[in-house]
Amino acid sequence: MDIAIALTPDPIQPPIHSPGRETGAVLEFQGLVRGSEGEVAISALQYEVYEPMAGKVLREILEKLGAAHPCQAVTVIHRYGLVPVGEPAIFVRVESAHRGEGLALLEEFMKQLKTAVPIWKVASVKC
Amino acid sequence: MDIAIALTPDPIQPPIHSPGRETGAVLEFQGLVRGSEGEVAISALQYEVYEPMAGKVLREILEKLGAAHPCQAVTVIHRYGLVPVGEPAIFVRVESAHRGEGLALLEEFMKQLKTAVPIWKVASVKC
Repeated sequence: MDIAIALTPDPIQPPIHSPGRETGAVLEFQGLVRGSEGEVAISALQYEVYEPMAGKVLREILEKLGAAHPCQAVTVIHRYGLVPVGEPAIFVRVESAHRGEGLALLEEFMKQLKTAVPIWKVASVKC
Repeated sequence: MDIAIALTPDPIQPPIHSPGRETGAVLEFQGLVRGSEGEVAISALQYEVYEPMAGKVLREILEKLGAAHPCQAVTVIHRYGLVPVGEPAIFVRVESAHRGEGLALLEEFMKQLKTAVPIWKVASVKC
C-alpha cells in the first residue's frame, strides 16, 4: 500500500491523483474547523504537532491498518498552526479496489488519529 | 438535510461546495469503473438507468437515511451510458457536523443503492 503523509502549516491542497486501472473506490475525508466550541463562536483553532513523532506514528498506524484492510494507496495531510473556521485541518484519501476496505480503513484511521498521534488542538480564537 | 441528485450521461463534475460554519466533516466517495471483469480486461461499462424511478428512489433512500443519521447535505451524481475505465460511475458527497453520521450514511446509502435503485450495469466493452 502506497502511503503519503504530509504535515504542513499551509492550507491543505489535495494532491491530484490518477487512480490505477484496478482502483474501484476513491474515498476522501476532510475534517473542517467548525465555527463554535460549545456555545462560544470561534474563528479558528490552533493545532500543535510534535513533528518528529507524528509522521512516524501516522505511518505505523497506516501500515497496520493496510495489513488488516488491504487498500492501494492512502494520502494523509494534516495542517497545524492556526486553522480558520471552514478550512480543513485534515485531509485523507483512500484508494482501493472496493469500497468496503476503504471505508473500514478510513474509519479506523480517524479513531486512532485522535487518540494516538501527537497532534493537539491547543487553543481556539474567539470571534 | 439538503439533498441534491443528478443522473447524467456525461462525465461527472463534482460541484463546488462551500461548507457551512457548522460543517465538521466532508466525505466524498467515487466509485470508478475498474479495468477487468473476472479475468477479462475491459475498457468500459455500460450503465442503464430507469430515470423516472431512479431519482425518486434515491431521494426516498436519502430521506430515510437522513432521519437515522442526521447530516447537513448529501449530493449524489450517477452517470449512465458508457463509462470508461478509471472514470467515476458515481459520486457521493456527505456534509455533516461530525464524521460518524457521515460515514454511517455513506456506507448504508451505497448498500441500498446497489440493491434498490433501478440502475444496472448492462454490458462491458472488452479491450
